[in-house]
Amino acid sequence: MPRIVETIVTTMDANGTAHIAPLGLIEDGPHWIIAPFKPSRTLDNLRAVPYAAASHTDDVRVIAGCVTGRKIWPLTPTTAVKGARLADCVSHWELRVEEVIEDSERPRFKCGIVHQETHKGWEGFNRAQAAVLELAVLTTRFRMLPPKKIEDELRYLEIAISKTAGPREDEAWEWLMEKVAAWRQSLFDKSEGT
Amino acid sequence: MPRIVETIVTTMDANGTAHIAPLGLIEDGPHWIIAPFKPSRTLDNLRAVPYAAASHTDDVRVIAGCVTGRKIWPLTPTTAVKGARLADCVSHWELRVEEVIEDSERPRFKCGIVHQETHKGWEGFNRAQAAVLELAVLTTRFRMLPPKKIEDELRYLEIAISKTAGPREDEAWEWLMEKVAAWRQSLFDKSEGT
Repeated sequence: MPRIVETIVTTMDANGTAHIAPLGLIEDGPHWIIAPFKPSRTLDNLRAVPYAAASHTDDVRVIAGCVTGRKIWPLTPTTAVKGARLADCVSHWELRVEEVIEDSERPRFKCGIVHQETHKGWEGFNRAQAAVLELAVLTTRFRMLPPKKIEDELRYLEIAISKTAGPREDEAWEWLMEKVAAWRQSLFDKSEGT
Repeated sequence: MPRIVETIVTTMDANGTAHIAPLGLIEDGPHWIIAPFKPSRTLDNLRAVPYAAASHTDDVRVIAGCVTGRKIWPLTPTTAVKGARLADCVSHWELRVEEVIEDSERPRFKCGIVHQETHKGWEGFNRAQAAVLELAVLTTRFRMLPPKKIEDELRYLEIAISKTAGPREDEAWEWLMEKVAAWRQSLFDKSEGT
């Protein structure tokens, strides 16, 4: 299977308005594939402006924020292509779409890295960051998974948070737990027939 | 709680022989605390030579390798302190012990970063890398956890491997699964009374 990296993808519409989305990029030899779902802003933007930036941030609040309605994060212009990247990131890639493979659900935009920069040293693995990422993914799948499975995974992920989180990871976790609380409430309301 | 980063710590004995160990470093303001268990080579070495390198690698084979008897990884001399670091890493810190807080189980070596270097761009989060790290931790706790809990967590971690692993992550996972297979066999042997 190809490796998939989870990153923050920024695209632009024809008017130059940036759109930010947490997405998995699929490795394909020297290329990276962006496969946005239909319909999505990222998809529309890539058709209008065939460039993207992938900002690799270790601040998981950006990822947790994007799935909990907190989508405004400081951006800064990219260097070699038309676009914007996260102002605070460890490194970033500037991507140009080289080929589009059409698909009824997820068209694939095969991109080449035309420029990359490192902005600060990566500080190594943090299990709490990974747990935030997993919970962020999980919160987008509430309707698809059995509640018991969600609660089991949550209990497991909480271990890494309690043991290895710093302030940024704790804050990101809290945002996601608000979403979990709302989901639990909706299940309760449904069971009560309200 | 302080953030803990999982990294590869290299220390040296008085003869200049390097020892490599995957360890969690505890953030403490501008300092990082190494807290090796008694007894351990890392502990002995830090008492003999109060320097360490923390190599932040995204090649999780090093982590999986260290817990499955594959401890020989290419090292290269550090720049500012006496020591060695992983030759292939994203970035590394060179640490000097500034204070030792004694403890009956895990003495704490409070270190300052005296030098740091970035060697390549970090490529973002990969869920499979995180899953390898979690399984590596899990395999060191087989005796402490109920078998059902281990099998449940394993099943959960496998999802990220099947969806997002590249060749390095697959290889690391296989090494760890050999250890899982040996543990399963030992449980079976015990239940058979052999």
